Amino acid sequence: MNMDIATVNALTYEDFVNILGNVVEKCPIITAAVWSGRPFFNLTALEAAISEFIDALPDSGKEGILRCHPDLAGRDLQSGSLTRESREEQAGAGMDALNSAEASRVARLNEEYKERFGFPFVICARMNDKANILRQLSERCQNERAVERARGIEEVKKICRLRLQGLVLTDAHNKL
Amino acid sequence: MNMDIATVNALTYEDFVNILGNVVEKCPIITAAVWSGRPFFNLTALEAAISEFIDALPDSGKEGILRCHPDLAGRDLQSGSLTRESREEQAGAGMDALNSAEASRVARLNEEYKERFGFPFVICARMNDKANILRQLSERCQNERAVERARGIEEVKKICRLRLQGLVLTDAHNKL
Repeated sequence: MNMDIATVNALTYEDFVNILGNVVEKCPIITAAVWSGRPFFNLTALEAAISEFIDALPDSGKEGILRCHPDLAGRDLQSGSLTRESREEQAGAGMDALNSAEASRVARLNEEYKERFGFPFVICARMNDKANILRQLSERCQNERAVERARGIEEVKKICRLRLQGLVLTDAHNKL
Repeated sequence: MNMDIATVNALTYEDFVNILGNVVEKCPIITAAVWSGRPFFNLTALEAAISEFIDALPDSGKEGILRCHPDLAGRDLQSGSLTRESREEQAGAGMDALNSAEASRVARLNEEYKERFGFPFVICARMNDKANILRQLSERCQNERAVERARGIEEVKKICRLRLQGLVLTDAHNKL
């Protein structure tokens, strides 16, 4: 049962961080920071506060966010140490069911990507299927670092939006 | 066995974050961000990079860091869900062995502090004994919010320094 925005606004910082702390993967500081800006008018306003906090970070901070993300179909998936959210998202896109040729290809491209940029390939798995993810992983390896930093952060925000929508009623529902 | 700074500088971001990611409690983004600034001349330079990243955050971000910290002698200690680092630090200061009067007093003051400031009381437990921690908890409840925000961040940096010193050789050792 998703919370309405009034319930979200009434949460102590501890409950707010416990419930919403992983909307940006392994970055509870971001959730914890935006609590300072409550009350939020609606889910869109909460999402905007998170985006603004991210946008105000220096480039190193944006890269820091990306570096807190696991590889797609990487060792955290294989060892079972993904966060619950990541596990469900990766499984939904079929990342847990690659054939051995696909798995080798993803592993090679992930390494190439990380070697080139110093952060992992981040994509909103729930908005892409397996074929599309593999294609983008290959294509995005060719970009410049600044382009990929910005692109990765865009994907972080998409992931965040979907995670938020799984926890908080969307604006349309609040108006009912 | 602590790493020397050359070993630290040679780490991939993944190993860097795996090993050093909790030098600021539950804020691996900070460790992950400063990796962008390597190589570090020595431990002091690494510590300075972390401090500078923290100092450049908006007030909400500094409060976000504080909100990622557990209460002293709080429910995370009781339920065994503290990070390893926090558990050892709190135990070292006797926070896991309060008598019932002390425990009640700490619980009441923690609630008072959080109600007043919207973030938890943070203190470097390894640099204080139980009596001193209880005294400061009581006294710091009387401060202004901006003073406590800054004071809490000072304590975060002390905790960070000691955690770093447990992982990386100090400058003097590097010179041997």
